[in-house]
Parts: sequence; C-alpha cells; structure tokens
Amino acid sequence: MSKRIRVGVIGAGRIGKIHTENIVYGVKGAEVAAVSDLKIDAIRDWAQGLGIRKVTGDYKELLADPEIDAVIICSSTDTHSQITIEAAGAKKHIFCEKPIDYDIVRIHKALDAVRNAGVKFQVGFNRRFDHNFKKVHDLIREGKIGDPHIVKITSRDPAPPPPEYARVSGGMFLDMTIHDFDMARYLAASEVVEVYAQGAVLVDPQIGKAGDIDTAVITLKFANGALGVIDNSRKAVYGYDQRVEVFGSGGCVAVSNDTPSSAVLSREDGVHSEKPKYFFLERYMESFATEMKMFIDAVLNDSIPSVTGVDGLKPVLIGLAAKRSLAENRPVKVED
Amino acid sequence: MSKRIRVGVIGAGRIGKIHTENIVYGVKGAEVAAVSDLKIDAIRDWAQGLGIRKVTGDYKELLADPEIDAVIICSSTDTHSQITIEAAGAKKHIFCEKPIDYDIVRIHKALDAVRNAGVKFQVGFNRRFDHNFKKVHDLIREGKIGDPHIVKITSRDPAPPPPEYARVSGGMFLDMTIHDFDMARYLAASEVVEVYAQGAVLVDPQIGKAGDIDTAVITLKFANGALGVIDNSRKAVYGYDQRVEVFGSGGCVAVSNDTPSSAVLSREDGVHSEKPKYFFLERYMESFATEMKMFIDAVLNDSIPSVTGVDGLKPVLIGLAAKRSLAENRPVKVED
Amino acid sequence: MSKRIRVGVIGAGRIGKIHTENIVYGVKGAEVAAVSDLKIDAIRDWAQGLGIRKVTGDYKELLADPEIDAVIICSSTDTHSQITIEAAGAKKHIFCEKPIDYDIVRIHKALDAVRNAGVKFQVGFNRRFDHNFKKVHDLIREGKIGDPHIVKITSRDPAPPPPEYARVSGGMFLDMTIHDFDMARYLAASEVVEVYAQGAVLVDPQIGKAGDIDTAVITLKFANGALGVIDNSRKAVYGYDQRVEVFGSGGCVAVSNDTPSSAVLSREDGVHSEKPKYFFLERYMESFATEMKMFIDAVLNDSIPSVTGVDGLKPVLIGLAAKRSLAENRPVKVED
Amino acid sequence: MSKRIRVGVIGAGRIGKIHTENIVYGVKGAEVAAVSDLKIDAIRDWAQGLGIRKVTGDYKELLADPEIDAVIICSSTDTHSQITIEAAGAKKHIFCEKPIDYDIVRIHKALDAVRNAGVKFQVGFNRRFDHNFKKVHDLIREGKIGDPHIVKITSRDPAPPPPEYARVSGGMFLDMTIHDFDMARYLAASEVVEVYAQGAVLVDPQIGKAGDIDTAVITLKFANGALGVIDNSRKAVYGYDQRVEVFGSGGCVAVSNDTPSSAVLSREDGVHSEKPKYFFLERYMESFATEMKMFIDAVLNDSIPSVTGVDGLKPVLIGLAAKRSLAENRPVKVED
Repeated sequence: MSKRIRVGVIGAGRIGKIHTENIVYGVKGAEVAAVSDLKIDAIRDWAQGLGIRKVTGDYKELLADPEIDAVIICSSTDTHSQITIEAAGAKKHIFCEKPIDYDIVRIHKALDAVRNAGVKFQVGFNRRFDHNFKKVHDLIREGKIGDPHIVKITSRDPAPPPPEYARVSGGMFLDMTIHDFDMARYLAASEVVEVYAQGAVLVDPQIGKAGDIDTAVITLKFANGALGVIDNSRKAVYGYDQRVEVFGSGGCVAVSNDTPSSAVLSREDGVHSEKPKYFFLERYMESFATEMKMFIDAVLNDSIPSVTGVDGLKPVLIGLAAKRSLAENRPVKVED
Repeated sequence: MSKRIRVGVIGAGRIGKIHTENIVYGVKGAEVAAVSDLKIDAIRDWAQGLGIRKVTGDYKELLADPEIDAVIICSSTDTHSQITIEAAGAKKHIFCEKPIDYDIVRIHKALDAVRNAGVKFQVGFNRRFDHNFKKVHDLIREGKIGDPHIVKITSRDPAPPPPEYARVSGGMFLDMTIHDFDMARYLAASEVVEVYAQGAVLVDPQIGKAGDIDTAVITLKFANGALGVIDNSRKAVYGYDQRVEVFGSGGCVAVSNDTPSSAVLSREDGVHSEKPKYFFLERYMESFATEMKMFIDAVLNDSIPSVTGVDGLKPVLIGLAAKRSLAENRPVKVED
Repeated sequence: MSKRIRVGVIGAGRIGKIHTENIVYGVKGAEVAAVSDLKIDAIRDWAQGLGIRKVTGDYKELLADPEIDAVIICSSTDTHSQITIEAAGAKKHIFCEKPIDYDIVRIHKALDAVRNAGVKFQVGFNRRFDHNFKKVHDLIREGKIGDPHIVKITSRDPAPPPPEYARVSGGMFLDMTIHDFDMARYLAASEVVEVYAQGAVLVDPQIGKAGDIDTAVITLKFANGALGVIDNSRKAVYGYDQRVEVFGSGGCVAVSNDTPSSAVLSREDGVHSEKPKYFFLERYMESFATEMKMFIDAVLNDSIPSVTGVDGLKPVLIGLAAKRSLAENRPVKVED
Repeated sequence: MSKRIRVGVIGAGRIGKIHTENIVYGVKGAEVAAVSDLKIDAIRDWAQGLGIRKVTGDYKELLADPEIDAVIICSSTDTHSQITIEAAGAKKHIFCEKPIDYDIVRIHKALDAVRNAGVKFQVGFNRRFDHNFKKVHDLIREGKIGDPHIVKITSRDPAPPPPEYARVSGGMFLDMTIHDFDMARYLAASEVVEVYAQGAVLVDPQIGKAGDIDTAVITLKFANGALGVIDNSRKAVYGYDQRVEVFGSGGCVAVSNDTPSSAVLSREDGVHSEKPKYFFLERYMESFATEMKMFIDAVLNDSIPSVTGVDGLKPVLIGLAAKRSLAENRPVKVED
C-alpha cells in the first residue's frame, strides 16, 4: 500500500459529496481516486472540478481497481451491508455510513466479512468527533464528574423529512435516534441493557399515517447502573437542537448549541441572540472532516478505527428494542 | 372577619418559622396572632422576638380561638389531613404544607371537610411562585411556544437526607419528586395520565437498604398528548439543581439555576462561575413569601387560592403511580 | 445607648422611604423612632402604617430627641452637610445619602464635625453591598486576578431625568457617575490620581441646553499604575445596565446584569431572554437593605463603618476633576 | 486575465503560509502559481507538498511572470509599500498584509501607484470577516441599535512578543491596536477625529525598557459625535480576549469570545467552562480564509475590495495620533 491512501467513494449524494470534498481539501494522507454513482451524469462535472480521475456508474469497478486502497460507502442504506461484504472480499478498507443495515443478521454477515478480510472498518457516527460532544466524553473519561449517573441527550431536527420517507427510513428510532443511541454509549462508556420508549405524533399527522412518530422520550438503563433519557422532535422551529448533559457522582457536564455568532442584541423589546446553526450540514461539518481524517489515520497507521463494527451494530439493536417498546408500551431488554 | 387577617401557625419547625417570619415582615394584610408547637419551650423566645402574643403547645387552642381567621399547617405530614379536618370544622381558612397526606382516602376526607366548610384551602407548592418557573408558565400560557410537546424537569438536591428519613418520608417520589409532579402539571396545563419510573441507588447504599432510591428518571404522558421527563438525584455535589425546559410546536423555553452572583472569573486554569444557590432555603425564599401573600390575598378577596386541594391531591396520585411503576418495572396509569 | 438602636429618618422621599421600610422590616437591631419631612402631610399615613410613633415637619426635633441614637439623612443634597454638622453636634450617629455635598470645603467641615463628635458616619454608596460587585471586590482581594491592570465600569440609566434636573444635580458626573467613581476606588483598592473625560449630548438636546451631557467615556489613572474606564449613558432603552470588569496579571473577573428571570425563549425569530432589572429600585433593593444593616452593625458594635467619610469625599473630588477635564479637554489631576 | 486567478505569494512566513494554504484548499477561483521567500530552502518541501510549481528566493520573478495575476504581500512590514509600488507597476492585483507602512508618505506613494495602475488592492484586516464582528457590523447597519453612541473594543493577547520586537514593530499601537483602530472605523461607520491614549508597562518591564508599553486604554471621538474606547493588554493569562460592544440610541450589541467547546462542568469547587481560543491562529482562521475569498472575488468580478487602501491608511494615522497622545498626555487630533 502506498503512503498516500487512494480512496474510492461509492455513492455521491449529499453525504458522499461531503466526504469526497473533505478528503480532497483537507485530508493530507489521502486522495480520491474514483467516485461511483448510479446517476453518473449528475456528478461528472462536480468530480472533474475536484480533479478526480475516474467517475463510474458501477461501484464494482472501484472494488476491482487494484490502485484503490479504501472505499467510502455512501450509497442507499439497503446496499451498505452487501457492498461492505464485497469490498471486504476485495481487501479494501471500509468507511461505511450509518446504519450498516436495519437487519441484524445482515449486519453480522457484513462484520464477519470485515473480520475475515482483516480490513479496517469505520462507521459514520460523526457526532463522536464534534468538538462539544468529544469534550464531554473526554471530561468524563478524565473522571471530572465521577461515575456517570444520568445521561441526557436532546436531539431535535429543524424540520421533518417528507412523510413517505418514514416508510423507507426504518422509522425515527433507526433513522434519527440511532445517532443518540450511539452518543449514549459513547458518553456512558457502558452498554444499554434496557429501553423504554414513549412516542407521539405531534408535528405532522401524515407522519403518523405513514406508521411513524415525530416526537419521543426514550429512557435507558445502562449495564453499570446509570440511567439515561433521550428526547427527540422532528421539528424544532428554532433550528437544530443538539445538546447533552451527563450527571455523575462528582459533578455534571453539559454542552449547549453552536450558533453562527455570539452576538447579543439588547433592545427595548428584550435581549436577542442567534438561533442554533440550522441543520447537520452547518452544525457537524467539522466532525465530518475529522471522522474522515481519523479513518485515513487508522488505515495509514494500522490502528483500530475510532468507531468499530460493534459500534455500528449496537445502536441498531437499541433502536429495534425501542421500536418494540413503543409498540408494546413496556420496557424492553436490548438483545445481546 | 377583620380586614387584617389574624393567622395561627401550627408547627414551628423550619418551614413554620419561615412562614411566620414572612407574614410578620412582609405580608401587609395579615398578622401572626398565635403559634403552636409540641416543643413550646424551643420557640418561645423566637416568637416573643417577633412580637407574637400567644404561644402554645396545643394547636387546638388556635382552632378554638375566635380571633384567629386562618391557620398555617406546618406540623408533621402524618397530622396534616387530621388538622385540616379539624380546622375546617372550626371555619378557619387553611394553608397546608405539602403533601396533604400519603393516603388518598385521607386526602379526600380532608378535601371534603374543606369543601363542606367553605373555607379557603391552599397547598404549599411554593415553586409555582418562583420567578423562573412562573415566567416559564406565563410564556407558555401566552402561547409563546405553541402547544407543549415535551416537558423536562431537572430536580437534584445537594445532599441526601439521613437514610432513616426514607422510612417516614414516603420515599423519594412522595417527598422530593412530588414538587416536580406539581411542576409538570403547572407547566403542561394538562393532567398526567401515565407514569414510567426508573430508579437506582447510586448515591448511598444505606438509602437502598432503607427501601428507597436516590436517583430516578421518570417519564410522563399527559392527557393532551404531550410527553414529559423528570430526572432526580439526592446528591448534586455542585448544589441545588432546579431547572425546567418546555418544548412546543412554536418554540422552547428554559430556565437555568439562580446563583449568588453573576461573577465570571477567567484564569489560566479556565473560566469559573458560581454554583447554584445551595438549597431550597436560599433558592426559594422569595417564593415562600409570595405564596403566603397569595394565600392572604385569597382570604382577603374571597378568591380561589392559586394552589387548590386538587393541586394537592394530584401529585400524590402521580407519586403513588410512580412507586408502583418502579416496583413492577412497567408504565402505570395514574388513578382518577 | 440601648441595645436596640433608635433611628430618626430625615427626609422621607423615595430613598428615605426605602431606608425606613428596610429598618422596619429587615434590620433586627434597630427601630425607626421618628421621621421628619418638610411635607409632613404626605407621609403621615405611610409612617403610621409602619407603626412609627413620631412624625414631624422639623428635623431639629429628631436631633433634640435624646431617645434617638442615629439619623438617616435623606433630605435634599444641599442640606446634607449642614444637617450632618448639626447631627454630629447632637451626638447622633449618621448615615448620609450621597453626595455629602458638591462643595469640598463644606464636605471637609462636615467630616471635621463628625470626627470631633466621635460619632459613626456612613455614606450611601449602596452598590458596594450589591451581590455582584461585592463578589468582584472579594475575588480581587483574594488575589484571584493578581494585580489589577484595567478597571472597566459600565453604568447606563434606562431614562434621563428631566433636563431641568441637570441644573440642580451638579451635572451627570456628580449625580450619576459619582457611584462609578466610588466603584472604581472600591474595586481597584487604589486612589484615582488623574481623569480624562469625554462627554457628548446624544440622548436629548435639552440636556445640552441645560449645560449638561448625557453620554460619557471617562478614563482613570490609579496611584498603583492601573488604568480605568467608565462609560455612561442616560438612556439605555433596554434598561438599567450595570456591569464591571477588572482585568489583572492573573486573570479577569466580570459581572453581568441581573434579570427578572433566567428564562430563555427560542423561537423561529431568534432566541430571547429578559432585559436587565429596570432601574435602581429593582436592581439594588437588596443592597439598600444590606448597607443599612451594616450601618446599624457598626453602631451596635462600635466598629468602623464600611463606607467612611473619606469614601464620601473622594468621588466628589474625582467628579470635579472630570468636570474640569471635560470643560478643558485635557487630563486633569485629582486634588488631594 | 484567465477565469481562474493565478496568485503569487510573496513571503511565506506564518501568515504567508496561511494565505497560501487557504487558496490551495479553499478558494475555488484561484490557484497559487508561485511562492517567493528569502529563505527559499525553508519552504521548498512545504510548497511542493501543496503542488505549487514555482518556488523562488526573489519576489521580482513573480512580478515579472506574465502568468501571475495577483500577489499576496506577506513579507516584512518595511517592504510592503515598496513591493506594492513594484507590483502595481507590473499590473498585478494586490493583497497586502497590514500595515501598509508606518510612514504616511510611503503609504500615500503606494496608494498612488495602485490608483495609477488601476489594480485591485486589499489590506489584510481580517477581523472584518470574523463571524462575530461581521454580525455586529451588520446589525448596526440594519439599524438594530439606532445611532451608535459608544463603541467599546477589548483586545488582549495571550502573551507578549519578545521585548526586542517592540523596536521593529512600530510599538503596540501600530502593531497590535491597529486592528482595533480598523475595527472602530468598521463598526462606527464614522471616522476617528481625536484620540487620547493612556499607556502603562504592567506586564513586563523589559517592554518598557525597549520603549514600548504593554497595557493601554485609548479613547476615541468619531466624526458623527460617537465616543469610543479600546482596552489592550499584551498578556491575558486566560487566552486571546477579543470582544466588542456597541451601544446606541436603540439598543446595544455585544459579542463574547469563541471557545473550543461549550462544555460547562459543574463541580463542588465551582462551575467551569473553557477559555477563549488561544490566539489569532485559532480564533481567526476562518476569517483569513474569508478575506482571501473576498479578494479573489473582487478580482474575478472587477468589484471594489472590501478593505481598501484608505482602510489601510486610516488606522496608521490613528495609531500615530495615539503615539503622540501617549507621549504628550493630551488628546490629539487625527491628521486628515
């Protein structure tokens, strides 16, 4: 393998483009050698402008290319596990967008393939690399709050996806809350063993008709005895609300939202400040760049990726338990 | 009845003394005519210093005194309902500390007695009169956040009571969380219909041995469809943590803790500010004075007290449901 | 002298009433024995409601009353020094509202009389007792910011006084900024040796026509080498703006405004919080009570008052230097 | 001129490298065609790693290269005006680091050369592009605070430069405060007409021996009647302190420091948060990228640069007035 990693990006939708540009502009040890997308015509100009040599409609060309060391899988969720298996077979290192799959059996097959091939595998839980959440994590690891007792996560989107999206997304818990389930594990440093989920349709009745919910409060029990709670809404009119608070025997640590500026305007009608950064592109842009650097570093240095296959599996298990809890209105144990 | 209300205080422990001094120093339409306490010797000097004429060991003397218009019941919890019944029989207006009782049948008997006597009855849920929580309440009532979707209450004490206290207090839910159950109703303007309670013993194993918990996350469903969550700890090392946040269709409102000063100290080792006010005496002193003014006003103006008998009953019902939920690890409906 | 101090209040305008009620309701070692005011009819009901025995139109009656231990001088500023001299002659302890006088010779005469009589004398610089400013002061004294280098004071009123007030008030520097000159000395723990004052009429041209200014930036040099700056406006549309910041070799400490509540409302149109408490009555009520307790304590314990005669003199000297600086547009040394 | 601007960077010290990398990684309409530096060996590897074709020890090669459209002048300050004149003669567009020169005559000569050549000229006052300061500026322009009355700028470095630096830097006012003079003009939208500067040596006596100061409070009068104050220190132990506040007839707007994260840690020993970002590289990285984009945009679109030659001249005039004010301890008019 060359000292400069050659990357192929599979699927150049919104998130695929972000990863591609982050590698081109910001990751020094890597270059994007090729990009594949089913809609090849839609990405040709964009790829050329970035100086990417190879653009194809068929990701298998990337897997077959011996010059490519690693792939970034950003295709539709239902293809993640299958492409992971193929890429592992082709001995490519793999960065896979979350979730690996909605089906536990398929996830296990993908992780088995990765293990057998001995390639690096990192899952796209980018929020672990966010400056705020990472700081909370680090302070907890340094023992600043003692033993964690209560983990609280607030995660609210500025606007709901189209109702029909509910049908293909696996539902709010697997599509949106899955990031919070990962965050809970990341911060508590303990596995979630039981879930109780309350859900409601308060934002848009169409979401309810599509079989999903748009508002939720989910409580968690961790293996180490700590408790947790996540609250979600598909529509916070003031923007993307992304906060955590962890309370422990020795103190409490909390982070607030990032804003475009710190300007505070005091007027006769009150004191006004800025809303949170609008949505995940604004809020998490830096974390997308960092997770990619971390992945390339893991490949370059042959070290363990920061978000492993197990880290990809566990939030899906929690999400499935939450779905059952909601359906049956009772606490549900998370499968091992 | 005279235009200046003559009040008798029954039970002059910590909270009884606070109410007494608030009336003496701050409530213009009222005076404390008499105080009773089982330990009469312990309060004589204090009462004299305040210019209170009559000090007795027997509250029945206060009830028998035709010059007394109203009583403040601050005796031990197990006597609240019985004294309420007797005071109502004596046609005294009643301010009763929370909780009215731990037993629903006894609460109903007390409320029946009040209703039959036609006297005023106010329960000591003082936090409704706190400047922060009242502002949240008012903003919600003004429609500033639209329909409430998620009510979040954080309530953490600075230090646990002695473990033996757990045996007489009715447990954390009826002793401590009961204020939060009242706050949930006050803010949501909707009744709690179902409760799911997680509890843990993370602060002090002695509390667990005494049959109680010291850490909890409790989720609520409201009649109007909104969801709620309360988190409690008996020991926040940084002091009394009392915050709420209500999220709705049109926005979100939150309050933070009060601190002794707003001083921010920036040094090489970080940026430092003050801890929350230490405990309820510091934090809620103003609200104790206000609730007493409101009670005297209700008597003077023959208006409905701001915290009614039903407001005293409901949090106990929620607390009992929470206890059962914890014991059976399942969501429990709140009795009507 | 009795163990309970008997106080006479001279002048029962707004501030006189505040001091009176604070003693009646909140200072345990003192009582208000008498009140005098030129407009005796306007205060009779108010005084009676507070249970004050003696109400008179002539302050000399208070000075002649052997039962009165101390007087609170709240009459018009032009009478402060004369009444101080007479009260000292009558061996009364004296709390005198600021400023003692606008004339240095008359201040010295008053302070001489106090010294000769050996009575306690405290000047009404209440802001020293404010929870925020006192905390800044204490942190500096504890060495938390090392040696002070830069003292910054922001002091802005919500609304200007009537323009004609400028003629009798001695001008903005002696009427309003005088509190900031005291604060500068209190925080820096060093004397102001030189002043440079910029002034402007930006709020109301009528104030300019009356010979005063309504906006100012004043820089200070302290004896210990530190620098200072005060900024003033007669009209902050968002309310009373009262902040300080002190920067030193080891750090920086700053306080922000107090608000009626900590409520933060996040909506589509931004994030909104409360304006500062409106004006000095709301903002400094607690400090008025505390300064009075401190005065009574100094009398009871025969200790040095917290704000001495020199503390009353110095800000006037600085104010006069500032007036000259503004008139001559040059830095001016403060007279010794 | 090509649609893609070919840029030559003159001087690849710290700031030259930042501009170079910002163009390479982040400015789509431009490329770095060449870099010159006196220490050519020190930059060869770095330049090659960025794919820059031409590296030279002689900036004149860049000026002579017909393929180069624009130059970024990041050489030592004493060469700025001379290279500007030569670059203008070679018809190159010019981005020049601040200050253009310390000598007014030489600045005028440089600006004349630019004017005669008709090339674009932008000065490196990057803080105008900072998210916080730009927001303050925009709110003022939108009339949100009415007419500005008081402009306050706090600007404190985390650590002083070596004392010998004072001799070559032109002194604190021309080296450090010059950014604040620009900020004052940018925010007030009015020219500074008079300056009064207080200075002190409180951080390091060696700085005083070198003829400079390390602490200052500078007051400003603006043409429109507004007042201003800047406070500076060479050593804020808690990091880079960069704040502004503008008060006006209709309100007040202020910004606070940026921090690495918003984490707040509450513990028994207090409530702790992060220090400001350490120094200008951390704090202003984004603004360096933005100013370069704006410069390239101005060249591409033939529009007026956002920071003009006059914007480069005025802060030097103010700085020279401040130096004289300090030396003579009197307010000094700014030369026209």
